[in-house]
Amino acid sequence: MKVYLDNNATTMLDPNAYELMLPFFKDMYGNPNSLHQWGSQTHPALREAMDKLYAGLGASDLDDIVITSCATESINWVLKSVYFDYILHKDRNEVIISSVEHPAVIGAAMFLKSLGVKVIELPVNDEGVSTLEDLKSVISDKTALVSVMWANNETGMIFPIKEMAELSHQYGALFHTDATQAVGKIKVNLRDVNVDFASFSAHKFHGPKGVGGLFIKKGLKLTPLLHGGEHMGGRRSGTLNVAFIVAMAEALRIANTMLDFENSHIRRLRDKLEDKILSIKDTSVIGRREYRVPNTILASIKGVEGEAMLWDLNKNGIAASTGSACASEALESNPIMEAIGAENDLAHTALRLSLSRFNTEEEIDYVARQIENATQRLRAISSTYAYNPNNYK
Amino acid sequence: MKVYLDNNATTMLDPNAYELMLPFFKDMYGNPNSLHQWGSQTHPALREAMDKLYAGLGASDLDDIVITSCATESINWVLKSVYFDYILHKDRNEVIISSVEHPAVIGAAMFLKSLGVKVIELPVNDEGVSTLEDLKSVISDKTALVSVMWANNETGMIFPIKEMAELSHQYGALFHTDATQAVGKIKVNLRDVNVDFASFSAHKFHGPKGVGGLFIKKGLKLTPLLHGGEHMGGRRSGTLNVAFIVAMAEALRIANTMLDFENSHIRRLRDKLEDKILSIKDTSVIGRREYRVPNTILASIKGVEGEAMLWDLNKNGIAASTGSACASEALESNPIMEAIGAENDLAHTALRLSLSRFNTEEEIDYVARQIENATQRLRAISSTYAYNPNNYK
Repeated sequence: MKVYLDNNATTMLDPNAYELMLPFFKDMYGNPNSLHQWGSQTHPALREAMDKLYAGLGASDLDDIVITSCATESINWVLKSVYFDYILHKDRNEVIISSVEHPAVIGAAMFLKSLGVKVIELPVNDEGVSTLEDLKSVISDKTALVSVMWANNETGMIFPIKEMAELSHQYGALFHTDATQAVGKIKVNLRDVNVDFASFSAHKFHGPKGVGGLFIKKGLKLTPLLHGGEHMGGRRSGTLNVAFIVAMAEALRIANTMLDFENSHIRRLRDKLEDKILSIKDTSVIGRREYRVPNTILASIKGVEGEAMLWDLNKNGIAASTGSACASEALESNPIMEAIGAENDLAHTALRLSLSRFNTEEEIDYVARQIENATQRLRAISSTYAYNPNNYK
Repeated sequence: MKVYLDNNATTMLDPNAYELMLPFFKDMYGNPNSLHQWGSQTHPALREAMDKLYAGLGASDLDDIVITSCATESINWVLKSVYFDYILHKDRNEVIISSVEHPAVIGAAMFLKSLGVKVIELPVNDEGVSTLEDLKSVISDKTALVSVMWANNETGMIFPIKEMAELSHQYGALFHTDATQAVGKIKVNLRDVNVDFASFSAHKFHGPKGVGGLFIKKGLKLTPLLHGGEHMGGRRSGTLNVAFIVAMAEALRIANTMLDFENSHIRRLRDKLEDKILSIKDTSVIGRREYRVPNTILASIKGVEGEAMLWDLNKNGIAASTGSACASEALESNPIMEAIGAENDLAHTALRLSLSRFNTEEEIDYVARQIENATQRLRAISSTYAYNPNNYK
């Protein structure tokens, strides 16, 4: 059996979105900016796609949703252009991020630091979440931007971004959320949470890899990251990738219609798998499940190296991860586990399982059995477990 | 009959490249950075694609070809990161560009200007080309970067970039070429021309829209434009768009195998069409054809507004343009015509026809007839032509 449980790394393209995008490669391949019929015949589909995105994210007509190549681009755009527009030659010089942001936020923030910006990292509690209190204790009238993720990519934990945005605005600071792991998994209404900027990526909600977007609240200045032609109202240059815009919008529309299913059926499968894991001795899961997106488990199986477990599961046809795929080329300990303050040997036992609406009950039962078997097998040869007398008390 | 002659704006995806990319959406959809089989099963195709790109562009194994979302991203990356790495806190403060660069280069350069960089624009001669002499007269040991396009998007004229790169290096300056309109149309060997950076975009050579690349010569530092995870060796973050990388590489491979065909068959069709246009009274074409890429004509038809001609051709199923699609939302006069110093009424008569290997002789004959008919019709009602007594001398 083949079971894909790495949907926080990337997802399968939704079959309907796939069908909808195909005509734009060899038939309706015109550049939307062209004045002839090859250009104009792409316009109805583009307009429909943009309507789906605005509706699906709860943006108003006066806000901007700008298509980018991925959330990483959107994130870099916000952080770097906030530097040029709101920090350089201004009297605010601080950026606040949570310490468990995606590498794109951390990397861009470190770049700003090299330019002289003061970057403050919020701590996280034992559930891997930064709280409003954490933000209160450091925000000031020197804060230019607060950037906190909506849902964490590794734990699935949801951050109090509505309250954080409100607090940021009280201090005259801008608020950006990396909504990459929230969109398509929980209800996302950007007007409701009142953020200034929000980044998202299609391939996390069954859209294609290589397209995403940035929400910019009505009237906000943001110097382009990609200067050039007049695409996207001058916000972001580069010929429009019509096929992927159409596919992304359709994937979002479908994901939003499936939110109830996600929150009932997928949540139930997730909880079932989680219960099975927790029924194994010396295991734990980060964060209360009611505060997580419905599809994610970050488990720790004492004595079992995450990579060894992955290898074992992979042999049995199961895809999981030890954490973010964006950093997994190096076999490091899980950064969330580290941020929480887990001991070093536990930080190496992370196992992330992330479901999608394409998973079945049969698959989940199979995975639960395989994890149980692998745990038994791997603990029997574990230097930190089998041969540790404390485990036989 | 439908005839697409706007291939400098964008192209149809090559059918073979299309077939090759399809499995990566719903079947082999893993994140290449993932450790499981969904990730690793993308690796052979990715490796093969990168091999095709290195071979197809004449890069050495020690150079870097980094995948980006388009040439606009590549161009912005070079200009902005050269600012951070080679201008800020250094003693070189000048960037030289040609005055007919793509809006991405001009836009990014104007952004650098706003940061205090001195931007020098090279003039162009009556063929729309900046010469080595032009560069010699302004380059100095204050020059950090020279950025000159390989082939112009509107005229197809080829610039002396090998000589310009050599001269730049003599002054210790870096050299970037926007190779977007050269790749796939003429032989491009980046090692041979010895540039430091080269930008390109798949959708100009029958690859998909939304993917491109940046060549970075061996050992050169270039701060990422997109910070984040460790993708592309830390050069450019963001989950790899496997499908489009595979399609781009295959499109390049095919385009390169078709270069002889491009240079014989397409050139002959282009020349035939050009001869037909020039056989009409009071017409001209910018630039000697032997110095152009084989597919492009930028014509001026006196007394005929470019947009009126487009409209007429479009009604008859023909796609053409008045110039760059990247700027064509505003009905401005053609910037090349302006740069050359054409009178205002001539600058509004630009008609760009750009062929591809998918055009046939029958199509070209049809287009020639339609242009002739349209010219007659439009001149008969032209305020600058029909009623101008000079035209009846």
